[in-house]
Amino acid sequence: MAIVRRSPPRVAPDLAARFAPYGVATIHEAQGRKGLLLSYMRPIFPRARALGTAVTVSIPPCDNWMLHVAVEQCHAGDLLVVAPTSPSDAGYFGELLACSLAARGVTGLVIEAGCRDVAALHDMNFPVWSRAVSAQGTVKETLGSVNVPVSIAGQIVDPGDLIVADDDGVVVVKRGEADAVLAASAAREAKEDATRKRLKAGELGLDIYAMRDALAKKGLRYEDADG
Amino acid sequence: MAIVRRSPPRVAPDLAARFAPYGVATIHEAQGRKGLLLSYMRPIFPRARALGTAVTVSIPPCDNWMLHVAVEQCHAGDLLVVAPTSPSDAGYFGELLACSLAARGVTGLVIEAGCRDVAALHDMNFPVWSRAVSAQGTVKETLGSVNVPVSIAGQIVDPGDLIVADDDGVVVVKRGEADAVLAASAAREAKEDATRKRLKAGELGLDIYAMRDALAKKGLRYEDADG
Amino acid sequence: MAIVRRSPPRVAPDLAARFAPYGVATIHEAQGRKGLLLSYMRPIFPRARALGTAVTVSIPPCDNWMLHVAVEQCHAGDLLVVAPTSPSDAGYFGELLACSLAARGVTGLVIEAGCRDVAALHDMNFPVWSRAVSAQGTVKETLGSVNVPVSIAGQIVDPGDLIVADDDGVVVVKRGEADAVLAASAAREAKEDATRKRLKAGELGLDIYAMRDALAKKGLRYEDADG
Amino acid sequence: MAIVRRSPPRVAPDLAARFAPYGVATIHEAQGRKGLLLSYMRPIFPRARALGTAVTVSIPPCDNWMLHVAVEQCHAGDLLVVAPTSPSDAGYFGELLACSLAARGVTGLVIEAGCRDVAALHDMNFPVWSRAVSAQGTVKETLGSVNVPVSIAGQIVDPGDLIVADDDGVVVVKRGEADAVLAASAAREAKEDATRKRLKAGELGLDIYAMRDALAKKGLRYEDADG
Amino acid sequence: MAIVRRSPPRVAPDLAARFAPYGVATIHEAQGRKGLLLSYMRPIFPRARALGTAVTVSIPPCDNWMLHVAVEQCHAGDLLVVAPTSPSDAGYFGELLACSLAARGVTGLVIEAGCRDVAALHDMNFPVWSRAVSAQGTVKETLGSVNVPVSIAGQIVDPGDLIVADDDGVVVVKRGEADAVLAASAAREAKEDATRKRLKAGELGLDIYAMRDALAKKGLRYEDADG
Amino acid sequence: MAIVRRSPPRVAPDLAARFAPYGVATIHEAQGRKGLLLSYMRPIFPRARALGTAVTVSIPPCDNWMLHVAVEQCHAGDLLVVAPTSPSDAGYFGELLACSLAARGVTGLVIEAGCRDVAALHDMNFPVWSRAVSAQGTVKETLGSVNVPVSIAGQIVDPGDLIVADDDGVVVVKRGEADAVLAASAAREAKEDATRKRLKAGELGLDIYAMRDALAKKGLRYEDADG
Repeated sequence: MAIVRRSPPRVAPDLAARFAPYGVATIHEAQGRKGLLLSYMRPIFPRARALGTAVTVSIPPCDNWMLHVAVEQCHAGDLLVVAPTSPSDAGYFGELLACSLAARGVTGLVIEAGCRDVAALHDMNFPVWSRAVSAQGTVKETLGSVNVPVSIAGQIVDPGDLIVADDDGVVVVKRGEADAVLAASAAREAKEDATRKRLKAGELGLDIYAMRDALAKKGLRYEDADG
Repeated sequence: MAIVRRSPPRVAPDLAARFAPYGVATIHEAQGRKGLLLSYMRPIFPRARALGTAVTVSIPPCDNWMLHVAVEQCHAGDLLVVAPTSPSDAGYFGELLACSLAARGVTGLVIEAGCRDVAALHDMNFPVWSRAVSAQGTVKETLGSVNVPVSIAGQIVDPGDLIVADDDGVVVVKRGEADAVLAASAAREAKEDATRKRLKAGELGLDIYAMRDALAKKGLRYEDADG
Repeated sequence: MAIVRRSPPRVAPDLAARFAPYGVATIHEAQGRKGLLLSYMRPIFPRARALGTAVTVSIPPCDNWMLHVAVEQCHAGDLLVVAPTSPSDAGYFGELLACSLAARGVTGLVIEAGCRDVAALHDMNFPVWSRAVSAQGTVKETLGSVNVPVSIAGQIVDPGDLIVADDDGVVVVKRGEADAVLAASAAREAKEDATRKRLKAGELGLDIYAMRDALAKKGLRYEDADG
Repeated sequence: MAIVRRSPPRVAPDLAARFAPYGVATIHEAQGRKGLLLSYMRPIFPRARALGTAVTVSIPPCDNWMLHVAVEQCHAGDLLVVAPTSPSDAGYFGELLACSLAARGVTGLVIEAGCRDVAALHDMNFPVWSRAVSAQGTVKETLGSVNVPVSIAGQIVDPGDLIVADDDGVVVVKRGEADAVLAASAAREAKEDATRKRLKAGELGLDIYAMRDALAKKGLRYEDADG
Repeated sequence: MAIVRRSPPRVAPDLAARFAPYGVATIHEAQGRKGLLLSYMRPIFPRARALGTAVTVSIPPCDNWMLHVAVEQCHAGDLLVVAPTSPSDAGYFGELLACSLAARGVTGLVIEAGCRDVAALHDMNFPVWSRAVSAQGTVKETLGSVNVPVSIAGQIVDPGDLIVADDDGVVVVKRGEADAVLAASAAREAKEDATRKRLKAGELGLDIYAMRDALAKKGLRYEDADG
Repeated sequence: MAIVRRSPPRVAPDLAARFAPYGVATIHEAQGRKGLLLSYMRPIFPRARALGTAVTVSIPPCDNWMLHVAVEQCHAGDLLVVAPTSPSDAGYFGELLACSLAARGVTGLVIEAGCRDVAALHDMNFPVWSRAVSAQGTVKETLGSVNVPVSIAGQIVDPGDLIVADDDGVVVVKRGEADAVLAASAAREAKEDATRKRLKAGELGLDIYAMRDALAKKGLRYEDADG
């Protein structure tokens, strides 16, 4: 059952690169409010941001052997996505593995478990989104799989999907939808730029979005507080 | 049942302003160890600090429509306080709403749910205390109420109460008690200044607070460790 | 049952000092993957680091009286370790107690409860690892004990044990094992230095650690993804 | 600040009694999906059910002194509602206090903290909804208040409000709304009876509630799975 | 993006039926320790047990509209599997929907959210595994999808997979593996029967499984306690 | 570092047996409100009760090999106490190991991890207190230790200590204090019997415990509610 799938198709590098201007919230909204990993997946340092094609790892609890196997499957522009088969907050990942990934051009790590050496990772600017910071060591006894679909933090990630991560969390864009999501993200961003200007000038969302009628129809009442 | 109460009485602006020198811990202690919101309410960036009169919002889970309604009820010096009617970590609030609130002179947001665009909010220095950081989008389908009493993170907040928030968390001062709490905060601060000097000089709290007798009366025993 | 044990034997100061170059993860691994406190024990500011001999406090929930008793038992080079007898996230500790500890040369605090005044503690660079940040005040009514063994965040800490804490968490080194753990930490660090260089140069962990045979023997299979 | 308010107005006993046929879910829906305490408030034994007018207690963490004060304020048909001022899972309540409450005709307890002696409470059929089961003892050192508004498990409870609790949780009905909520509960129950019969006979909710058009208008698509 | 896939292929009813003798733990082990949903998925009453082919629902937070859509897609022998697109403990499901499912021969429900009417569900013996018991009402405003792959409690469930659930939790068997897992479950059960007899007779696992050599080789030491 | 200590001294069987009449809450109070394990340690079936001398196991996460080693160290009247070295909710223990322990006269299990086969364990009346119910399988790769001090759910348990567990949780009585705690438990029980009678007869705790003066001295005020 332990298998390493080599060279799965990925979102094309030039297409992936065009997501650079867009944040996690924008992309999540643009693709119809889906794809967001659960909010306990947090960056290990502020202002972290990463963008890459997923190399996925299904890994046993408290055992990081398969990370070494996964490194070899990573190309420049990939981002490693690691999901334990049962919950673990152990420190699967630290500075040495980050050196190895960085040497291959990997852009970051998303792991539903623990990470350690966070000061060193910050110094080398290797971004990680994890469920915990933990120095807890792991063993190297049991196999897992690389480049299989994984369930991570409430989402399904397939190898080759696009991952975008920033201060707001982590979002997955399905490989087959990347083109459409890119266009929708650009459209949303343009629209928000215009709205931002009006809000800063003091206009109300109630008016910009023309909400007053709909609110009244639902039954919203106003009254003066007696004070 | 959905209602917007306009212009509830607030703690007077000049009285509110005089709380500026005092931190959350000091005010909480000064009013008799009450009013502190639960510790999962955390600032989204370090050294955040805000002080304002509460405009309250009772809001459905995963639905941020009423935030747009609430903006219109905010004056300069207010602080928005948002409590979902059932638990939600969704990202109700982000940069665009912050632009709108900032344009009206609102000083910050306290929300028992999620917040997104944290990097942008940090850049514009709009402070938020939330239960989670999450990009999860919300819908605009169901009404709630503005300026009604809310139960948030273990405290009751009435519209017009004073909210103070900093790195240590969030505290509410009831409108009718603001004068007394201000005086008590100043007194506590003065007393702590004197104690701080003595502690830095090496005096012990045991002596400064004259605790030794009370400890002995309770039965505290000392013995040498045998090593 | 409330007792203060005076002057328990401690890891010798010069031995303790020699742990300065080693991080929590290294020491934890060097002593056989043990001694790590649970990952919810987090530093209150980034890049915190401390090293000291444990003065332990077993303390009632929501009552910080014994902290004042404990201060007197602290020497230069000690680190205070505080465990409530039942769970509490209250703010037992803040700036004033930190002034008192700093005046005695105490290097930091590890507390399985809440801490407050975090901005002030950061400004004075007094490091704290806690389970929560909370301004919640405590009472001074019930005794506890100083310098007794405590169970804290999943580990047993005896007075005089060595504590090392950094961004990755907190580890305890038993007093009788400090010599051996120091040697093992130095050995591990040296070995990791060599590995780091090879990984940065693009060698794979699979080859450096000669894992390929063991993986094949366990049954790992490779196949090409069809894409 | 510690106060005992005697004899606050309560929902009338005969009005309260008429809620007996209705469950928590029905009442919660009937009053517009509000008033439900958070789902961590669980009965300590199965098939527990209680109905009573709230005597409220605001109580310090890990200190149950005020429960003895509150007992005296309880009448037949009351239900005790206890909220710590900061979080605590300690075992504030056990068999002896239940004997005292039962002797006065109190119908149950709702406490956002711990309860103990659960086997004995089950044997005497005294129902409790709590956040935890815990034998942890408490002290009797610090005052609180009786019959003041409390924030408990996400809801505001005022003295004299009606509390209904069963296997599904706990709901509060505001005193001034009890008449209307009773009527709405009866109406909802009658309507559900009719629907239940049709569903059991195999009719679909899609048809009973005439949802198909609305779903299509929102864009729901059907397609055959290719398998 | 909202879609209902009709009649996806399912594990054949007669094959599914043959899993009846085997518990969740046995099946989970037999398929190589995979497929188990996270342990917070708990039955709402003791001795619950269900077996069925998955009809999956991807559903918005706090909105149960799609459950009515899903009912129509269910056949006898199916089991409904419901995953919110973002976390929610609301009470999506209760007695009325259970009547509707039971009328169609559906065997149970697995939902990563809340369930209500638990006493009634117990009375009608309709088993549910949920993350919470909650009476919290939901709305009917937003679409989701039926019979798409879902990520639920850490596992991927595809429509037509086999679900087995009992007191120990919930396990998914992939459709294409059901034959092999059935055989492996039977083999494991037979082997455990033999072992059980020997253990009851007082033989040790150390001897039955011949572990002593392996333990010694790993370095296990025995010594007499001095007491 | 992996060691099995044989035959540590235990609380004498006849002394242990005399604790049979006393519950966890009584013993916890009688020994000065200490020794209680955290409240997440719950029995896997109602009305479970066990009493035994601790055989302790320090065990790796997700690896149950050492349980087989520990069985051999158990005598009649022992109770197994299992603490993972880092957090794990995996299902370390099930029916087969229970058969083996029961055959040796072991009275129960306390494990800060998961347990499975709960229906079978209930049927054979083998009581377990655990942190979770989980079928998640474990490996047999890494050693641990038997009969060493362990930190479990906030308490230190030494081999040979007395463990009492019931519906209210788990309490540890230190070996050297068992005589004194037994006497204190009997005294407390006798005193509570007398109080129980008076409370049932309608006397108030306020009067039985003579609390009114102390309350007044602390400043408790009574006032009539105006309603």
